[in-house]
Amino acid sequence: MSGEPSVQDVSDWWATAVSRVEPDVIELRGRPIQELIGTTSFAGVIWLLLRGSAPTPGQQRLLEAALVSSVDHGPHAPSIAIARMAVTCGIGLNGAIASGVNTLGDVHGGAGEQCMEMLAEVTRRDGTDLDGAAAEVVSRWRRRVRYLPGFGHRFHTVDPRRAPLLDLVREAAAGGHVDGAYLRAAEAVERNLAIGRARPVPINVDGLTAVVYGELGFPPPLARGLFVLSRSVGILAHAWEEAGQGRRNKGPMPPSVLPTYEGPS
Amino acid sequence: MSGEPSVQDVSDWWATAVSRVEPDVIELRGRPIQELIGTTSFAGVIWLLLRGSAPTPGQQRLLEAALVSSVDHGPHAPSIAIARMAVTCGIGLNGAIASGVNTLGDVHGGAGEQCMEMLAEVTRRDGTDLDGAAAEVVSRWRRRVRYLPGFGHRFHTVDPRRAPLLDLVREAAAGGHVDGAYLRAAEAVERNLAIGRARPVPINVDGLTAVVYGELGFPPPLARGLFVLSRSVGILAHAWEEAGQGRRNKGPMPPSVLPTYEGPS
Amino acid sequence: MSGEPSVQDVSDWWATAVSRVEPDVIELRGRPIQELIGTTSFAGVIWLLLRGSAPTPGQQRLLEAALVSSVDHGPHAPSIAIARMAVTCGIGLNGAIASGVNTLGDVHGGAGEQCMEMLAEVTRRDGTDLDGAAAEVVSRWRRRVRYLPGFGHRFHTVDPRRAPLLDLVREAAAGGHVDGAYLRAAEAVERNLAIGRARPVPINVDGLTAVVYGELGFPPPLARGLFVLSRSVGILAHAWEEAGQGRRNKGPMPPSVLPTYEGPS
Amino acid sequence: MSGEPSVQDVSDWWATAVSRVEPDVIELRGRPIQELIGTTSFAGVIWLLLRGSAPTPGQQRLLEAALVSSVDHGPHAPSIAIARMAVTCGIGLNGAIASGVNTLGDVHGGAGEQCMEMLAEVTRRDGTDLDGAAAEVVSRWRRRVRYLPGFGHRFHTVDPRRAPLLDLVREAAAGGHVDGAYLRAAEAVERNLAIGRARPVPINVDGLTAVVYGELGFPPPLARGLFVLSRSVGILAHAWEEAGQGRRNKGPMPPSVLPTYEGPS
Repeated sequence: MSGEPSVQDVSDWWATAVSRVEPDVIELRGRPIQELIGTTSFAGVIWLLLRGSAPTPGQQRLLEAALVSSVDHGPHAPSIAIARMAVTCGIGLNGAIASGVNTLGDVHGGAGEQCMEMLAEVTRRDGTDLDGAAAEVVSRWRRRVRYLPGFGHRFHTVDPRRAPLLDLVREAAAGGHVDGAYLRAAEAVERNLAIGRARPVPINVDGLTAVVYGELGFPPPLARGLFVLSRSVGILAHAWEEAGQGRRNKGPMPPSVLPTYEGPS
Repeated sequence: MSGEPSVQDVSDWWATAVSRVEPDVIELRGRPIQELIGTTSFAGVIWLLLRGSAPTPGQQRLLEAALVSSVDHGPHAPSIAIARMAVTCGIGLNGAIASGVNTLGDVHGGAGEQCMEMLAEVTRRDGTDLDGAAAEVVSRWRRRVRYLPGFGHRFHTVDPRRAPLLDLVREAAAGGHVDGAYLRAAEAVERNLAIGRARPVPINVDGLTAVVYGELGFPPPLARGLFVLSRSVGILAHAWEEAGQGRRNKGPMPPSVLPTYEGPS
Repeated sequence: MSGEPSVQDVSDWWATAVSRVEPDVIELRGRPIQELIGTTSFAGVIWLLLRGSAPTPGQQRLLEAALVSSVDHGPHAPSIAIARMAVTCGIGLNGAIASGVNTLGDVHGGAGEQCMEMLAEVTRRDGTDLDGAAAEVVSRWRRRVRYLPGFGHRFHTVDPRRAPLLDLVREAAAGGHVDGAYLRAAEAVERNLAIGRARPVPINVDGLTAVVYGELGFPPPLARGLFVLSRSVGILAHAWEEAGQGRRNKGPMPPSVLPTYEGPS
Repeated sequence: MSGEPSVQDVSDWWATAVSRVEPDVIELRGRPIQELIGTTSFAGVIWLLLRGSAPTPGQQRLLEAALVSSVDHGPHAPSIAIARMAVTCGIGLNGAIASGVNTLGDVHGGAGEQCMEMLAEVTRRDGTDLDGAAAEVVSRWRRRVRYLPGFGHRFHTVDPRRAPLLDLVREAAAGGHVDGAYLRAAEAVERNLAIGRARPVPINVDGLTAVVYGELGFPPPLARGLFVLSRSVGILAHAWEEAGQGRRNKGPMPPSVLPTYEGPS
């Protein structure tokens, strides 16, 4: 921009291809909202807004499954506990959800995104020596991260969400609905992590949703974005349950338990 | 609690009926997660977590429609603009969504909840003089609020989401899938607001989703909670689009437009 | 605005008297920033931005004392615990502080604001029958709130911050630096709450800061605003300490303690 | 932890050296709160909580100056604009501040932290060839970042906060109150950036506060933490001003200016 700014500059500053909202008009990705209401599912509109067109039934099925799989992991999850505490402090459900969702950062909400990046590196050698590629990528990632994203779980020996998600992706790949490259990459990494170990390190929910989102063509950062949409559901359910119990200023432990003081006296 | 606190007290402090998460076990409302993945839609698991059991197909259809209707209202909506600005500041999509969702307070996200409360007052006289009830309730609310929640729109003459949502609820009521009390209450209020006016004040999207959630048996605060889940989708789509444009520290207007200074010199 | 919008409309949309920021110019409330740096304390600039001019030394002393008094209340305070949990989730200190500060709502952060409103009602009868006014106001508030804001503490018999803050306000009133009306109102309420009780209900830190902010002429909502600035310090200190301990995804209790499940099996 | 968890494990989970809060006791870093109120300034208690002991007068003077310098940069700053918009949406000042503070991420709030890291690399060669060290460090950083943190400003030719902060640090170094290593490093980088350029790239407020915090011995992440405390003041002042104007759901531009739509028709 040079010279005097114009109103057009201001309009352009907020240019968007997501939606057109004018008096009496709401279009999402070029489709009038009145055509979507009643014909499109919630998951379908998530796909539409993020991708620009409607999903196929096979794509939608995988997306729904991935979104369902991450909704909740109980009050041990900081995002859940925080929302429960927040709602007892006199803020609305919107604020409680915000405080919880905000914590889905690199550690709590980023494993899916990171796993997609890692698997994408393996997929580049798909069709050649996949096990070799997996070994090499795993070894490279191990040098810079403490925990390999998407594999193993500090709580579950085998994540109960592994089997049903794996079945769905295998079925979709067998039916030609998806390519299968991320699936093969994840299986190769899982094989690699089992070599010479008494206790395997199976792929977990973050890894499986990374596979699903990778097969569906989402870029890695949207693995986190979609996880946020999913986990918001559990956050809301827990915050709402807590709101019904009437506590005020709920701390992390009962008032009778004092934190250990370890400073100077 | 009297006497020494016990570990059981700590467990009870975090008691929940939403989910059971133990090593190798994840159950949502008593249902193993592996049975839900692949068989339940995202909207279905939203219902399950909030209500404790699965929705009927008729209930799910209305819920999907309401969730679809509120996903986006463009960059004029503070929640959308804020998320777009936030993502240019070097925080993740989780943080951008949190900053946006947080603003869905009483004014930006509370109209559905308030409208449900208002309509609930009218429904108590369902079966008797509904128009009289509507007149009375409207008059009482007018004395304490500046804008009647759920009716009229500062932007749209007729909200384009009105017709399709209204059709769906009428159809559901005609088919006996829902009771219809909130629908009749909303229609009575709309009639009341048209009396003696050149320009009617039709029910808007907040009012229609209030009708849907009321017919489905949700308590008023969950109208806001569900709106948060819905709007999060548009917030994510806009934040993601903005992230792709590479701006840094995006302000509300181009840098060449300076805010008017109206303080002392 | 009628007709076509202009760039001036956009500038006016963001009009402010707080600061003037133009190329090579930063003025706060009309004062060049370069004159403030090195001459004004942090508390002084807080006063300047909120009030439009510099505080007197007596005003600043009271403001500093009130800001110091609320910085921290340990990990039992949801705002503190939440920030500690948040920082282990892979978000920056800005995000951890935001998640914590966000919870300073009506219950966790609103007592000072509410107490100012209550005391303001008593001050209107200052100079006449203050004990009668206190009795009447207390009785009216008791009918609508569960806990009288600013009096009593669920944790402390006598809030250790009561004596030093009370001394400072009394001294300031005796020296003519403040009017004393909020002080007299608070003392009258405290007397009223002691009548016929074995265990008194002394004014707490929220009540005392309400007295200070009232004497200093701040409107009630800024009691909450100033509390946010104060508590942010403790939130930062705790988040920083937690960050140094290297935990990942810290939940509210050790992983070995499971939440009680109270739903269907 | 092995075997059954105990209540002591829960207390230890929340161990802290920041404060001791027990019935009728509040100690900050080992000092009873009643001794701090009235004797310690707000900036002094910030130092105490973050560092564990009281600052010297010289240290406090620099800390106050740095905190004063970053409080506000007008509505062009996303953190300020967001808080103004948020407060019109029906959330409290705590929520508006949270939405704003949350955006002080790597881009909007991280320059000070990054600049400290960069200068720390230069300081390691303090006493030897500082200009050579600066050249080398600048060249290395240039390869991985688009903008050198702490130098240059997209808005100001010379940041008006540069001179007063620089004077204060030089004076403190000359008086032996601080070591001066960060100051010399920043001067060397500034010299390096002027070589062969018509238009110099002077150190900006983020760079100068990085120098101050470095001289004072703060670790780099606290440069961001302290910036959050500082900017919260301007965020509060702007949110409060906006709250007084009565707008509802303030978007980034007047309703009459529509965002450019650039999607499919």
